[in-house]
Amino acid sequence: MNELVCGTSRIVGCRFSVFPMTDRFVEVIMGALKSVQTDKVWIHTDDVSTCVRGRAEHVFDVTRAIFAHAAASGVHTVFNGTYSIGCPGDTDADVYMSEDSRVLNSELGPHADIESACQFALYPLGTEQYMDIIYGEVQRAKEKGTFGGSVHYASRLDGTLSRVFESLEDAFSHAIQTDSSHLVMTAVVSAHSPSPKHRSV
Amino acid sequence: MNELVCGTSRIVGCRFSVFPMTDRFVEVIMGALKSVQTDKVWIHTDDVSTCVRGRAEHVFDVTRAIFAHAAASGVHTVFNGTYSIGCPGDTDADVYMSEDSRVLNSELGPHADIESACQFALYPLGTEQYMDIIYGEVQRAKEKGTFGGSVHYASRLDGTLSRVFESLEDAFSHAIQTDSSHLVMTAVVSAHSPSPKHRSV
Repeated sequence: MNELVCGTSRIVGCRFSVFPMTDRFVEVIMGALKSVQTDKVWIHTDDVSTCVRGRAEHVFDVTRAIFAHAAASGVHTVFNGTYSIGCPGDTDADVYMSEDSRVLNSELGPHADIESACQFALYPLGTEQYMDIIYGEVQRAKEKGTFGGSVHYASRLDGTLSRVFESLEDAFSHAIQTDSSHLVMTAVVSAHSPSPKHRSV
Repeated sequence: MNELVCGTSRIVGCRFSVFPMTDRFVEVIMGALKSVQTDKVWIHTDDVSTCVRGRAEHVFDVTRAIFAHAAASGVHTVFNGTYSIGCPGDTDADVYMSEDSRVLNSELGPHADIESACQFALYPLGTEQYMDIIYGEVQRAKEKGTFGGSVHYASRLDGTLSRVFESLEDAFSHAIQTDSSHLVMTAVVSAHSPSPKHRSV
């Protein structure tokens, strides 16, 4: 069981990348990573992506803030992340689980209002009831008003950056209370796209 | 069961985006989409991503070719895709399943040799044996020589663009022969990254 490196206990992780579509992408990415307070999460960046691990509230807080700071550049910027909890496999120390729950990056100012479009998918693993869990979280997004329709292999969320990430956190947090011990959620969030919403290009 | 739109029968789909980190991103993305022969797949692009559906060989052929044409621009370009088969939910016509298996974009020329780094993850749904399926495909990548190590929540592949996509197709194709009727695979493939491989930035 040591072939893969995943999480133990109820630590939440997110492996993500931020893609600013500009010649200045290094400056935007590095600026965003440095603008965010990451004291309460384990964080590691390699040449493909960044991984943060810790309590759910801090993982969502940090990923939302990094995307917000990158999108604040005004260029078309996309966040791609895989959130995960309960992956069997490794024995990493879970020291960050003892942090308190006060988030460090809640004040995003005007960045919180950046219009965003998201496509997300939930994958509850190890259970035959996975479709029921998915339908339940789609219903929750509908009630919240962020649901923007279903497309093949994903559900859409539309709204401000803060509302879209709130819906993602809601879906993940509620789905892990079901009988799925190992839950994965993928999310692609786009800001400042030059393409018209819901339209083919 | 009509809340979500997924695939029926054994049609394979991939929802993906290509991110060229340049001010000319629209030109690179549109150029790549137009350079590829897509007659044997259903394809639809919205403001967040593109979805292709059809036989597995054509879905991998088209996604590999679109990334290759975008990466041929020479700028740092990332492919992010979710491959899926067996998602219960919709009743779309599967007319593209009757196409023959001859792929249309196998000749990528020098683009096939672009050095690429990939992080991928397999999610076999509806089965308690999902970790065994994952370990088996990691082992296959090791034997092929493309395996580049495990990171939290993903496995790494390194090699030329053609070998990386061949490993992805191998993993997906073999994993669907197991007892998982619904299989999802995420893959992030990066080319021309200015960051040193395997190193923190």
